[in-house]
Amino acid sequence: MKQVNVLGIDGGGTKTEAVLMDENYQILGSGKSGPSNYQSVGIEVAKNSIQTAISQAVTNSNSHQPISGICLGLAGVGRPEDFPVVENLLQEIITNIPIKRALQPNTIIICSDSNIALVGGIGYSIGIVAMAGTGSQVFGQNSQGLTKRVGGWGYLLGDEGSGYNIAIKGLQAALKSYDGRESPTTLITDFQRHLGLTNIEGIVEVVYRRGWGATEIAALAPIVSVAADKGDKVAKKIIQGAVKELSIATKIVISTLFQPHESFEVVTIGSVWNSMIDFRGRFEDSILAIAPTARVIWPRHQPVYGAGILALKAVKVKS
Amino acid sequence: MKQVNVLGIDGGGTKTEAVLMDENYQILGSGKSGPSNYQSVGIEVAKNSIQTAISQAVTNSNSHQPISGICLGLAGVGRPEDFPVVENLLQEIITNIPIKRALQPNTIIICSDSNIALVGGIGYSIGIVAMAGTGSQVFGQNSQGLTKRVGGWGYLLGDEGSGYNIAIKGLQAALKSYDGRESPTTLITDFQRHLGLTNIEGIVEVVYRRGWGATEIAALAPIVSVAADKGDKVAKKIIQGAVKELSIATKIVISTLFQPHESFEVVTIGSVWNSMIDFRGRFEDSILAIAPTARVIWPRHQPVYGAGILALKAVKVKS
Repeated sequence: MKQVNVLGIDGGGTKTEAVLMDENYQILGSGKSGPSNYQSVGIEVAKNSIQTAISQAVTNSNSHQPISGICLGLAGVGRPEDFPVVENLLQEIITNIPIKRALQPNTIIICSDSNIALVGGIGYSIGIVAMAGTGSQVFGQNSQGLTKRVGGWGYLLGDEGSGYNIAIKGLQAALKSYDGRESPTTLITDFQRHLGLTNIEGIVEVVYRRGWGATEIAALAPIVSVAADKGDKVAKKIIQGAVKELSIATKIVISTLFQPHESFEVVTIGSVWNSMIDFRGRFEDSILAIAPTARVIWPRHQPVYGAGILALKAVKVKS
Repeated sequence: MKQVNVLGIDGGGTKTEAVLMDENYQILGSGKSGPSNYQSVGIEVAKNSIQTAISQAVTNSNSHQPISGICLGLAGVGRPEDFPVVENLLQEIITNIPIKRALQPNTIIICSDSNIALVGGIGYSIGIVAMAGTGSQVFGQNSQGLTKRVGGWGYLLGDEGSGYNIAIKGLQAALKSYDGRESPTTLITDFQRHLGLTNIEGIVEVVYRRGWGATEIAALAPIVSVAADKGDKVAKKIIQGAVKELSIATKIVISTLFQPHESFEVVTIGSVWNSMIDFRGRFEDSILAIAPTARVIWPRHQPVYGAGILALKAVKVKS
């Protein structure tokens, strides 16, 4: 294959990353900027973030090859209505930036964040990604190209097993216990101490009046994990429930996409997997119990690298 | 008792009501205006709403008696820090309005919305109010003046058994079922049809991107109730769970405040009690099973009337 340069972009709710990659999957340059989840930050902010990240990646590379392919993985993109919006956005951006382009049709790929996370995490498109950070979802693809997603409905409608879910269940349990509706739990004093409150009732002020969002609440998940590790039964039940939810979601993706004796990998991505004590091991046990041919792995590469791989794949199909 | 006029005010998240009441608990005039939950709408809006409602009540009354007492029940007021804020607010308002005043110390009462709901609903201060509208809480007071509150932590942290809780559990169950993680349920098509969606995935757009709040989500609760009534097992479980949560909360208030053979009333207030099918009857059965001396009643008066009663009581103690 002749010399080829492609762009991989990972657009998220808090940051946007871009890499310029060559035909040997080598990163020539990378860039980083602000959020580009256009549904929450708006089209203009998203455009600026993506443009900045791309410009940085190209400038840092010292490469003068034209860009032959682009893959943009964007959080929240999934419905058919999203694609034309994002495609227009991307077209405008690449027209704005003074870069050489040799883009054939079908070498601009727009997909969801779970798609590039799967490809980056495993190194290719087949397998399962179990994402559990602030939110959660499990996404997979098999060798026939069939995909299945479970979860990812956001903090109000789902995200079972996520950091947000663990934290909010911890807070709810602490308040129920304070009311006398739940067994005693150290979570009451744990949250109080962590948040510098004189009384757990102050949590109302913190959550509603300081304008806390899902991210801030999710950051309290490790408190539940530590309490569970110290033997608090209420906290233990929450942590075990989260492992169970992620296992159930993963098992549905497995049974939808893979045959009983097929080998495949499940990559775990997100802060929950390494910040919760005695969590990932239980998940792994639960998965291997029903799918002994599965391998639970840590991510091999970042999602932005997965976007680069997908862009390169599109160009190779063309060439 | 000589001729006395007092003001009762019910300040909520969507509206503010005021009544001018005489010494015989007769309403001489009433007023209604916008929201006055100062934590969400801000001090200025709250001040305007309360001022407008009071002015209307006084103007409509044709009474020229001075105001001898005021009771303001405000949603979300409960913590010690709230009282000086609201007291200042109320002082400013009554100075602004050209009304005759004969206010003795301790004849200005500031309390929570549950307090005036209890007094309005039952007619006096002793008993229990089980509130279940968009949110939920159970509050009670006994003859010794001891109070107990369970719940009322808001839509994210609690509000079990509320309209919001029933609706969000219905949506979560529908999406879990769609994912293959929950038994089949008619809730998927029920929500789709109600919201005019071609696919249940469109619920993400509705809930997150249209800026829906707890009130809009809570308005979907009757869909879960209707599905349960038609025999949908998933919906039934949610409705039964809500009844159970409200029963548990009420039982804790009962056991904290009342002796086993003491007679008292439990007043049910809020849209959930009359919009859910086969709901209040189950709640009543559950309460009577553990407290046969309790009587579950519908509210005798509005909360704003309860505020009037409390204002009058304060004046009578003084006179």
